[in-house]
Amino acid sequence: MKQHTSLTVPGFDDVIAAHDRIASHIHRTPVLTSQFFDDMTGASLFFKCENFQKAGAFKARGAANAVFGLSDTDAAAGVATHSSGNHGLSLSYAAGRRNIPVTVVMPRTAPDAKKAAVRGYGGQVVECEPSTSSREAVFAEVVAKTGADFVHPYNDPRVIAGQATCSKELVEDVADLEAVVAPIGGGGMISGSCLTLSTLSPDTKIFAAEPKNADDAYRSFKSGHIIADDAPDTIADGLKVPLKDLTWHFVSRHVADILLATEAEIVDAMYLAWQRMKIVIEPSSAVALATILKNKDQFAGKRVGVILTGGNVDLKNLPWMKS
Amino acid sequence: MKQHTSLTVPGFDDVIAAHDRIASHIHRTPVLTSQFFDDMTGASLFFKCENFQKAGAFKARGAANAVFGLSDTDAAAGVATHSSGNHGLSLSYAAGRRNIPVTVVMPRTAPDAKKAAVRGYGGQVVECEPSTSSREAVFAEVVAKTGADFVHPYNDPRVIAGQATCSKELVEDVADLEAVVAPIGGGGMISGSCLTLSTLSPDTKIFAAEPKNADDAYRSFKSGHIIADDAPDTIADGLKVPLKDLTWHFVSRHVADILLATEAEIVDAMYLAWQRMKIVIEPSSAVALATILKNKDQFAGKRVGVILTGGNVDLKNLPWMKS
Repeated sequence: MKQHTSLTVPGFDDVIAAHDRIASHIHRTPVLTSQFFDDMTGASLFFKCENFQKAGAFKARGAANAVFGLSDTDAAAGVATHSSGNHGLSLSYAAGRRNIPVTVVMPRTAPDAKKAAVRGYGGQVVECEPSTSSREAVFAEVVAKTGADFVHPYNDPRVIAGQATCSKELVEDVADLEAVVAPIGGGGMISGSCLTLSTLSPDTKIFAAEPKNADDAYRSFKSGHIIADDAPDTIADGLKVPLKDLTWHFVSRHVADILLATEAEIVDAMYLAWQRMKIVIEPSSAVALATILKNKDQFAGKRVGVILTGGNVDLKNLPWMKS
Repeated sequence: MKQHTSLTVPGFDDVIAAHDRIASHIHRTPVLTSQFFDDMTGASLFFKCENFQKAGAFKARGAANAVFGLSDTDAAAGVATHSSGNHGLSLSYAAGRRNIPVTVVMPRTAPDAKKAAVRGYGGQVVECEPSTSSREAVFAEVVAKTGADFVHPYNDPRVIAGQATCSKELVEDVADLEAVVAPIGGGGMISGSCLTLSTLSPDTKIFAAEPKNADDAYRSFKSGHIIADDAPDTIADGLKVPLKDLTWHFVSRHVADILLATEAEIVDAMYLAWQRMKIVIEPSSAVALATILKNKDQFAGKRVGVILTGGNVDLKNLPWMKS
């Protein structure tokens, strides 16, 4: 089983190589503005719309970089991951583009729609029990049998270099950003943003946005070491996972602050974005906007990039339908 | 009461003048593509996203053209219309930009959210009973009292010339369109598309898309004279109104065909657009997409413009939540 989780810190050269490698497999997503949110915050907000990305989330960048960086020999054995979320979907998309096998280990309790989406991109779903021990055992078996390359959802230098292309496009398209706000879960997007911005735009402050209900990155940041929570509960289901060594490397060095939003604030921001910008964003994306709306003083008068990370939601089960 | 409903047919010069007049008050909306829908149809679809337009619909174009075309003297008396939909909202938006009074006559039974939205843009709502006779009486009273200029939702050359700027942008941004599909209700958007395309791209076929449940334009087109239905029932609530003399002028001369979609087909197309393109479109917009999905043979292999007319929906009451 090949792993890339020892501390091989990617550099900006890796980001340039990644962008060349994945350009034909991803969208250069648009940057939208909103008079409504500018009026509301006093800031000039530039929304990088990764909800329009292939497979519906920024994760297609890192997955494509990992998949298309493999030698033909390694690629023949395929790739594998464990993820019931956007990374599993994106890895299936990228592997499908290269026409190589991909296995996604998912709890048997994951929604059928998520399994179907992975299969829709040509991925093979292998089910495990909904426990860490079962997941690890089943995943090890898959890798032993197939020799597949393990692409971790975020703690992988290839993945971080891929995610870093998002902020690269943003600063190419929008000059003089004084701040960039992105959600933080495992820290792949934030690490990529740190990697790019510290090179291309070192005066841009990087803010991570996290659900208050899953504030392990916030507490890690404040205490100076990684804290991992067991099964935090938040509607922003992409942000439940903990930091790991590689992402901690970037977060601890380059992030200006981590801002928190409550569940109600996340849902309100998501609703407002749908209503006023006419775009479908998932709760994890809304966390970034929510923290700006509640910290207006910090952003007023500034040019602020906001990374809307994805748009994969169950349209038949929206949070504002639940009351 | 000034009216512009006698047959003053706008020409393409009026479209150029309109575009100059309104450019700083509207968005030049993006054109999106979708691999998913291209694969599904075999066509190359170019979606003109008027759901991202100011006030959430293409109607801002015609309303802004009417408002900003008024002399200062006429403008001082304000504008007025009767509409509980996007036109009332858009006229309020445009009048607000010019800082002149605007009155929108609406049935007292219209949703509070629609009244609030008009007021949010600075419009004054005057309520009438939910009947044509009450609406006309109340509207006449408003105009008599204020001297406001009546801006009809579609049967007005200024409005048609404004809507025509949408197809103008589309053909400027996308070359060699073989067809353009847009929804038809009163016919303002289709008339504008006819006006522009017959001049700039005469080989582009113009298809109107209509709900089967409100197929008065279809029956008008087939029979050669205007047929108006009394209160048709469709989820595409922007498309219930009948053709009038000015819009009939364009429809009868330039439309290649009118295609119909059932309520279920409209909802399915709307759901798919939200799910795959991550954009919020209203049912009226989905009618155009629905007719393409059910008439694939007609569009396969062709470059097709699709006008997504608006994105104003009640997010708390979505059609797929009703079952």
